[in-house]
Amino acid sequence: MSEVSAKKRQGSRGGKSTGSSRMLGMTDEGKRVTSYDVARVAGVSQSAVSRCFKPGASVSKKMRDKVMTVAKELGFQPNAIARSLISGRSNMVAVIINNFTNLYYPELLVQLSRGFDERGVHVLLFTLEHESDVDKMLDQVWQYQVDGVISAARLSEEQVSFFEERGVPLVFYNRSFQDYPVSAICCNQEEGERVLVNKLDAAGHKAFSIITGPTDSMVSNQRTQGALNRLKELGKKSVPVVEGDYGYDSGRAAFRELMESKKKIPDAVICANDVMAIGCMDAARHEFDLRVPEDVSIVGFDGTSTGAWSSYRLTTIDQPLEIMAEAAVSMLMDRVENRDLPPEKRSFSGVFLEGESARLG
Amino acid sequence: MSEVSAKKRQGSRGGKSTGSSRMLGMTDEGKRVTSYDVARVAGVSQSAVSRCFKPGASVSKKMRDKVMTVAKELGFQPNAIARSLISGRSNMVAVIINNFTNLYYPELLVQLSRGFDERGVHVLLFTLEHESDVDKMLDQVWQYQVDGVISAARLSEEQVSFFEERGVPLVFYNRSFQDYPVSAICCNQEEGERVLVNKLDAAGHKAFSIITGPTDSMVSNQRTQGALNRLKELGKKSVPVVEGDYGYDSGRAAFRELMESKKKIPDAVICANDVMAIGCMDAARHEFDLRVPEDVSIVGFDGTSTGAWSSYRLTTIDQPLEIMAEAAVSMLMDRVENRDLPPEKRSFSGVFLEGESARLG
Repeated sequence: MSEVSAKKRQGSRGGKSTGSSRMLGMTDEGKRVTSYDVARVAGVSQSAVSRCFKPGASVSKKMRDKVMTVAKELGFQPNAIARSLISGRSNMVAVIINNFTNLYYPELLVQLSRGFDERGVHVLLFTLEHESDVDKMLDQVWQYQVDGVISAARLSEEQVSFFEERGVPLVFYNRSFQDYPVSAICCNQEEGERVLVNKLDAAGHKAFSIITGPTDSMVSNQRTQGALNRLKELGKKSVPVVEGDYGYDSGRAAFRELMESKKKIPDAVICANDVMAIGCMDAARHEFDLRVPEDVSIVGFDGTSTGAWSSYRLTTIDQPLEIMAEAAVSMLMDRVENRDLPPEKRSFSGVFLEGESARLG
Repeated sequence: MSEVSAKKRQGSRGGKSTGSSRMLGMTDEGKRVTSYDVARVAGVSQSAVSRCFKPGASVSKKMRDKVMTVAKELGFQPNAIARSLISGRSNMVAVIINNFTNLYYPELLVQLSRGFDERGVHVLLFTLEHESDVDKMLDQVWQYQVDGVISAARLSEEQVSFFEERGVPLVFYNRSFQDYPVSAICCNQEEGERVLVNKLDAAGHKAFSIITGPTDSMVSNQRTQGALNRLKELGKKSVPVVEGDYGYDSGRAAFRELMESKKKIPDAVICANDVMAIGCMDAARHEFDLRVPEDVSIVGFDGTSTGAWSSYRLTTIDQPLEIMAEAAVSMLMDRVENRDLPPEKRSFSGVFLEGESARLG
């Protein structure tokens, strides 16, 4: 071993001193260890060191072992950041999320992160508190030179056009535009609601009610519209609609509002997500002493794990979260590799899950 | 407006062409717009442009307005990545998480992200599937030159020493070492369990049982040990302990196992988290037709929102998630600003939440 590496090892021994002036990965002069330092100590050329750190590059096992041993001794790390300036690839993608009331979103984040991690790409997380913060956040997204973006948050057509102008691939998750081409992964919300309405209708339900998510949620609007459209086709016109916020308490409050309104008591309540449906079930049982589903059928949407708990056994539409997340990851990475791919939409059908919260004949 | 900026605007108009050769933020020669381009068009010096983008730098409003207008026209963005090579600050922190069975962790991630976002710092997410992947993941962490790391995953003392050698501040979340100085934010798990045991004991419970999380979870081990220690002090020695995995189904299965064992039927079950306690309640009620809390008291730990649902009204210890996340963010950022700060531990007491799942006299 060379003097340099021996010193390094000495410096790092024990490793309990903080603020030490001699740190692993630094030369005695306090500079970052470079590939040239590794080459010098290993007695090889800098380009050989470089090849050893390049995935797929041709290099003998003997050479690689020698270089890697020295690199480890010196604490050399190829700098992903510096490399990104040369390659134009940062191996980071941004994920933009804004709605955390819905239990579904943190789970999505975990699935996306796993998918990217498998590809050696890391997720830079942007959480949006208010819609009005989008522009400020996009400024940050550009600055970090991410390779691409997945957005589960609403963006305007103008904001999307900035991505194209900058050549940064974007994939929407569960949102899209009708008149503006953009890549997107969606669950077919309308179809799912139509399936639910048809099943409830076939079982003889008469008095339908709807509990929506927040009015600015595109997903909630699609679900609500899907249910209302199908109900209208079935001749059911005056359907009470109460607004919730995707949260448990709002589901409870909305059910209370439905019961206390002068209109007829519902025998089927369609909720824009599972968590509100669970709130609704608890209100029906514990506040109004109703039996679910004998007195009132309650259905949700999402297929969250909580809906399967035996106190609820919710009848719902399962969004295929893992499949959709994986599709989003691969759709984005395809566009990072080949920026000329045209926008594409993939729409996944939700899966009807029959629980015990709806009387289905 | 200059010719350059007019061309840019023309190039970006409509914004629907993908793969366009002229992109916002690029010069006509296809190079990135730099601060020099902005300076030339605005008719000011490059250092003036630089000052305009430096937070807190002295610059007149007139100058700033002029520079910002031109920068916007040309699509100039200061490059956070390039800047990080000069400043040594990437304004990114890594968050390492490994346990997603527990509903608590995705919520933590969101809170951490919010805290960092407020400080203009972004979270690079690392999800760990297997403990054995830690070394590979740390390699990635070094490569991205993050300013600091929060780890809710287990790291060895040796792995922690690498952070010190590289001068990268690390804050543990809900884990720590006894014999090795490291910064950490913890909830006082033992104390919380002792509070629960004392309350159950005071109410006359006799047959205690424990459902643990995964054996490799430090948090679960601390909770279990806290409960067992206090039970031992109270003279209760042969306490059945069944292992779960933090998930709902494992709570159900563990309760079944307790009931089917030859030992006496429990009248108090202490679960290492809320989700298992919920599974336990459902098993007691729906599989064994027991009343909770009349026949058996069940308590959890975490204070998840689901525990408050009226079908459960779980008695539990609330970990002050938002406060702990904010403390972790500020503890880390303090060390990013000043690397000489010594390791520090902050331990927060959990808050006893009296629900209706335990008979408490």
